[in-house]
Amino acid sequence: MLAMPRPLAALFAEVRARTVALTAPLSDADASVQSMEDASPAKWHLAHTTWFFETFVLRDHVAGYRLHDERFPFLFNSYYEAEGRRHARGRRGMVTRPTLDEVLAYRAAVDAAMEAAFDDLSADAQALVRLGCHHEEQHQELLVTDILHLFGENPLEPALFAPAPKVPVAMPGAMGWIESAERIVEIGHEGRRFGFDCEGPRHRALLPAHAIADRTVTNGEWQAFIADGGYRDPRLWLADGWAWVQREGVDAPMYWEERGGTWTRFGLDGRRPVDPAAPVTHVSLYEADAFATWAGARLPTEFEWEAAAAAHDPCGGNQLDTAGAVEPRPAAGGPAFFGDVWEWTGSAYRPYPGFRTVEGAVGEYNGKFMSGQFVLRGGSCATPRGHVRASYRNFFYPHQRWQFTGVRLAKDI
Amino acid sequence: MLAMPRPLAALFAEVRARTVALTAPLSDADASVQSMEDASPAKWHLAHTTWFFETFVLRDHVAGYRLHDERFPFLFNSYYEAEGRRHARGRRGMVTRPTLDEVLAYRAAVDAAMEAAFDDLSADAQALVRLGCHHEEQHQELLVTDILHLFGENPLEPALFAPAPKVPVAMPGAMGWIESAERIVEIGHEGRRFGFDCEGPRHRALLPAHAIADRTVTNGEWQAFIADGGYRDPRLWLADGWAWVQREGVDAPMYWEERGGTWTRFGLDGRRPVDPAAPVTHVSLYEADAFATWAGARLPTEFEWEAAAAAHDPCGGNQLDTAGAVEPRPAAGGPAFFGDVWEWTGSAYRPYPGFRTVEGAVGEYNGKFMSGQFVLRGGSCATPRGHVRASYRNFFYPHQRWQFTGVRLAKDI
Amino acid sequence: MLAMPRPLAALFAEVRARTVALTAPLSDADASVQSMEDASPAKWHLAHTTWFFETFVLRDHVAGYRLHDERFPFLFNSYYEAEGRRHARGRRGMVTRPTLDEVLAYRAAVDAAMEAAFDDLSADAQALVRLGCHHEEQHQELLVTDILHLFGENPLEPALFAPAPKVPVAMPGAMGWIESAERIVEIGHEGRRFGFDCEGPRHRALLPAHAIADRTVTNGEWQAFIADGGYRDPRLWLADGWAWVQREGVDAPMYWEERGGTWTRFGLDGRRPVDPAAPVTHVSLYEADAFATWAGARLPTEFEWEAAAAAHDPCGGNQLDTAGAVEPRPAAGGPAFFGDVWEWTGSAYRPYPGFRTVEGAVGEYNGKFMSGQFVLRGGSCATPRGHVRASYRNFFYPHQRWQFTGVRLAKDI
Amino acid sequence: MLAMPRPLAALFAEVRARTVALTAPLSDADASVQSMEDASPAKWHLAHTTWFFETFVLRDHVAGYRLHDERFPFLFNSYYEAEGRRHARGRRGMVTRPTLDEVLAYRAAVDAAMEAAFDDLSADAQALVRLGCHHEEQHQELLVTDILHLFGENPLEPALFAPAPKVPVAMPGAMGWIESAERIVEIGHEGRRFGFDCEGPRHRALLPAHAIADRTVTNGEWQAFIADGGYRDPRLWLADGWAWVQREGVDAPMYWEERGGTWTRFGLDGRRPVDPAAPVTHVSLYEADAFATWAGARLPTEFEWEAAAAAHDPCGGNQLDTAGAVEPRPAAGGPAFFGDVWEWTGSAYRPYPGFRTVEGAVGEYNGKFMSGQFVLRGGSCATPRGHVRASYRNFFYPHQRWQFTGVRLAKDI
Repeated sequence: MLAMPRPLAALFAEVRARTVALTAPLSDADASVQSMEDASPAKWHLAHTTWFFETFVLRDHVAGYRLHDERFPFLFNSYYEAEGRRHARGRRGMVTRPTLDEVLAYRAAVDAAMEAAFDDLSADAQALVRLGCHHEEQHQELLVTDILHLFGENPLEPALFAPAPKVPVAMPGAMGWIESAERIVEIGHEGRRFGFDCEGPRHRALLPAHAIADRTVTNGEWQAFIADGGYRDPRLWLADGWAWVQREGVDAPMYWEERGGTWTRFGLDGRRPVDPAAPVTHVSLYEADAFATWAGARLPTEFEWEAAAAAHDPCGGNQLDTAGAVEPRPAAGGPAFFGDVWEWTGSAYRPYPGFRTVEGAVGEYNGKFMSGQFVLRGGSCATPRGHVRASYRNFFYPHQRWQFTGVRLAKDI
Repeated sequence: MLAMPRPLAALFAEVRARTVALTAPLSDADASVQSMEDASPAKWHLAHTTWFFETFVLRDHVAGYRLHDERFPFLFNSYYEAEGRRHARGRRGMVTRPTLDEVLAYRAAVDAAMEAAFDDLSADAQALVRLGCHHEEQHQELLVTDILHLFGENPLEPALFAPAPKVPVAMPGAMGWIESAERIVEIGHEGRRFGFDCEGPRHRALLPAHAIADRTVTNGEWQAFIADGGYRDPRLWLADGWAWVQREGVDAPMYWEERGGTWTRFGLDGRRPVDPAAPVTHVSLYEADAFATWAGARLPTEFEWEAAAAAHDPCGGNQLDTAGAVEPRPAAGGPAFFGDVWEWTGSAYRPYPGFRTVEGAVGEYNGKFMSGQFVLRGGSCATPRGHVRASYRNFFYPHQRWQFTGVRLAKDI
Repeated sequence: MLAMPRPLAALFAEVRARTVALTAPLSDADASVQSMEDASPAKWHLAHTTWFFETFVLRDHVAGYRLHDERFPFLFNSYYEAEGRRHARGRRGMVTRPTLDEVLAYRAAVDAAMEAAFDDLSADAQALVRLGCHHEEQHQELLVTDILHLFGENPLEPALFAPAPKVPVAMPGAMGWIESAERIVEIGHEGRRFGFDCEGPRHRALLPAHAIADRTVTNGEWQAFIADGGYRDPRLWLADGWAWVQREGVDAPMYWEERGGTWTRFGLDGRRPVDPAAPVTHVSLYEADAFATWAGARLPTEFEWEAAAAAHDPCGGNQLDTAGAVEPRPAAGGPAFFGDVWEWTGSAYRPYPGFRTVEGAVGEYNGKFMSGQFVLRGGSCATPRGHVRASYRNFFYPHQRWQFTGVRLAKDI
Repeated sequence: MLAMPRPLAALFAEVRARTVALTAPLSDADASVQSMEDASPAKWHLAHTTWFFETFVLRDHVAGYRLHDERFPFLFNSYYEAEGRRHARGRRGMVTRPTLDEVLAYRAAVDAAMEAAFDDLSADAQALVRLGCHHEEQHQELLVTDILHLFGENPLEPALFAPAPKVPVAMPGAMGWIESAERIVEIGHEGRRFGFDCEGPRHRALLPAHAIADRTVTNGEWQAFIADGGYRDPRLWLADGWAWVQREGVDAPMYWEERGGTWTRFGLDGRRPVDPAAPVTHVSLYEADAFATWAGARLPTEFEWEAAAAAHDPCGGNQLDTAGAVEPRPAAGGPAFFGDVWEWTGSAYRPYPGFRTVEGAVGEYNGKFMSGQFVLRGGSCATPRGHVRASYRNFFYPHQRWQFTGVRLAKDI
């Protein structure tokens, strides 16, 4: 069921090419503007992922390598705790120079240097290459969602891609429930294959008796929640969530607007009607939790999710293969746990027993974000196929919803 | 080891009297001013706890009861999602009328009506009386810490009470560690005695192998953390915590100031030197976590804490008995888990398996706060003795530190 | 027409007594709470005006005087550019200690020391006493309006005073216009009597041909402005004013609320119906300017106002004589320029030709506020009678409206 | 001395060509990013100035004209009070589509349509063309300063142009003073030639006796102000100015940084040493006022300035002729009043006697900004030569300093 680990050189080539392909339709301006503090310009994603290989592989492991441009580490290093207003995260959109073309030339130069060095890399360096590829795949997903956000801020709401052809699919049937008695399960990454530090150590956990839904919540079900006054009833909401709804005036998923009595959503193919059969997406943890309360259910814990997903193919489903108007699609067939939408869990993002931060700059990666965020599982239509695993832990703040985030229900039994 | 449940009438009388005693040294102005949005005026605590009994017991269960003042429910009801600027939580300090004397008269009137009704209360009403007493004990602790905050905002830093007599105590010895192999434990309130809804259901949980410290961190140890640059090294901090340190200019626990080369703290007895042997307090979760990282340890989970504390007397230690200059005290003797300081755990405040919100207004109580907060355990010097249990879950946002909050370490073994 | 200058000792006694009388109905809490950053607690006004005499007269001019309390200058000195959060202007409400009684004792002690010293004061010291009296009269007006604001923030909207008896007055007739051809006038304080530094030097100014209304705008006229959509038409508003209307949701004068189809206002006698015959008050410069535009007129310049007012009695009209439910009253009789409401002029508050800041602490007084504020003229129902002059320049930011501020129209001819 | 009015067709061609020339070195991204809310993207300036001609001339006065793109009025209309987040002024940088090339094509199309229509335009339409040219010249200056700001936000601080050749110039001599006795002068635009509405009506004003400096303040003089602690002494500052200095941490003119003991400034030619002989620029009104106080002088009123400048050639001095690294230059020769830097006056921007807003959309232009801003006079190195007049009133908020703003002193005599 699990694909073989991808050979490193092929993985590197595939990943590097995909990032460039994803940015192909972008103008210099599209690639430079930052639409909000949470998002980064496409150019920054292109350069930052390149900086990773240049720094941790070429600079540190390839004798005689000379930096492509001495100023770039300073610009494209997210790890460095830079001081001063001009380096604030929210000012990444000020960097109109270097241009998109110059950044693409930077990519090409680093790729060439990597290719030349590939056969002589030490095992340590190879491990860093693999880490860099997975790191870049994460940025590919952010790149897609950041671009979507930018285009959504343009009053013209331009379409970046032609819409995907619509294949008629029947509305999904009633939600089925996968039941489980109390049991001890093994949770976390098993360690032979690549995984991020926060996925381990693998450890035993006690699951309570529970049931988890066999599919995610649909747009049609969400419309029923709206129609039933879900966004106006404080009893359904977490206190922080209700404050957020009031403060931001939230009354529907992000990118939704009611036009002429019909719910529409903005996507990479522009503004179009909401498909009631497709999984709901661009909802916050607050919305997911309120919906679950309204539905008489709850969100699954991340362990319940992982235990249920372990038997499913992480490379299946609607995930990112090529650039295009990706979006969640109506499901056909049986239970699926991967692709379409990241599924909010009810678990706060915290370390597993025995978790230790890796030494050095690379080790800063995940541990320091372990407060205030919730875990999401399963990957989305914007996750590069092959990137996600049952043990994979994504995490966002409970109000964030510019990723392809959705909802699966669970309940106590 | 566990005290018998307190008889209801005695409990009611004791709790109601203690609240008034705690406010005895306050002027009308002291009792009316709100020093920050997180805090409430003492007068509001006095009235709100009274409103609870008037509403849920007298109004709902005592035939013919007439409200003391028709306008008070409107003013002192924290449950009602009031609209409009004047009712915002941060405007509680605008209510200079009714005066402190009028609020004390309100208390006396409700207490008299309760006394008259006591013998005829139904079992349901009695349960509400008990809930109201525990509710009021929570507000007693807030009242003490809110008053401390208010006096700390006064540039004169007045002392509300004479200092407690200092009893010479030796510095605590090296931290000892209580080890535990992996095991399944029962967690949560057992149900025969009073507990808040969020403490249950009691359920089984798998603890990993770990060790938990036999005492909390001292002011002396915290001074070493400061001296070692703990507040200036971003590698020790959660990302949200580091942003908080930078934004707020934090460089020591709340109420600490260095004066003439000596660390002092503000307390209910005014500003005095920090006692190196006493448990550190008024630290945030962010600080607690950074300290643990600096010390090569971590915070315990709430389950690790509860399992270790279960064998200890929840009525022991330094807890609130009478009004006075309460503060954490140097410990004498063996391991203690209750009193002195609330101990930050590494557990986000989330529902237990099978948790259900109670129906009705009272049921709003705890569930809706289950995002973004961390669990604290153990009670403090400001917790009314008898209020806390091993299963007791307190919760605050990770940046909050005006409560008597401290740190116990744990580690993986 | 001009009253004789008030003898100094009588002035001092009268002013000092009036401040205390104004605070007579206040509780300790009423006197301690700060309802917004622009306002100060009554206790602070009581103490700050006392600090002025203690510092600039007793400390500097009376040999052997010892401060009443060494800590008070630190607390009640608005001139000192204090550093630190606890001293920020917005934290004046944190000072619950000293109590109201202690502050009144401070007043009594300083008054006694002043009385003992009065006969021996040098001319310089006498000048400072006179300045201190005028300074205190300014604070009396702020005290009244700050208390009004505090009570308006209380959801119960308590009445501090019984309502003034209503004397039937006919609606004012059509607005009359006082015309003036272009001419050179003398503007500013003439110098023999007391005046604030910003009122001089007296200088010549060229007035254009213009007309100025013979009365201020009424509540009835303002209701017509509201009914005509005045608050919803951006074309009537200054750009900053329209942004303010949108941001704050302004749709009527401050303290107005529509209840059951009737406009009501909150005043020192509680909430009551708006009197259509009385001058409109509690409007901002933005509102005043929009009204004038709507009416096809403009605001007068401060020079036009002063030239027209010079022939009128500054001690006449509805000004503050004793504590009570002061408010603007319907006018009976001919043109009046003093009392009822401060009248917004179209003049920015800037220095006159030849203006020089006085040396020393007292000199900081007015000059430093000369940016961003507009001049108001004429005094109000809360201005102590005898305080105001034709040359008197009051000033506030264009959005402020918690003072008794109103509107007089002018036009070009 | 005054140049003849520029023939309309030539003016139109010259102005339209200059805007495009100014943007020639910009990339698509340079032209699209908005660096702060006060600034607009170059692309927006290009499009908005074009929209003006398309709307008010072609659409309204040329039969059969069809809009170039129906969506552009919606995007590039600054007059329309658009609602909603996406249209907020601060979101202009979100419009990456249309691209720079598409906007340039829009310009070309409108220019072609204008050329075709030119001979048949009515007098009314011709007046609108002239207004549009002056409007576009204003945007040229903003375009230059907005680009400077954007490049200054880039951590690399790129140079857009080669530096201008430095011509050795002696330090200016001691400041000379032009004295004037009290007198009546004519102020404002005389009406036969083009002027903006706020420059009139021409009217008589009384100037007090005063002296005005014969040159502006230099960088060298400003360095003396800094060295003397000018930014640290609250007594020199307006209260609003001191609050601004504290809040923003201001300690030098905008774009200045001390590097290795030398003051440098960022300009269109990158970061270079400050020239002590050149006029200081990029200072706020607050700084200008504090400097004047420090120097024992004051700022001139706008009338004093206009009276002194009336005898000077408004087309002379260092003004914008062609795209390049414009900046203030050391002066050679006698008194000059035009070019180099806009000079802050001490006059609030308010209407002249008899001012009336023009009817219709174009009339919204200036009147609504008449609160909170100060008048600047004289034009700068970024003002298109021919644009400015002695009666010309520029205006900005007192904290703004991204324009080429400087200081001329005055004093009472």
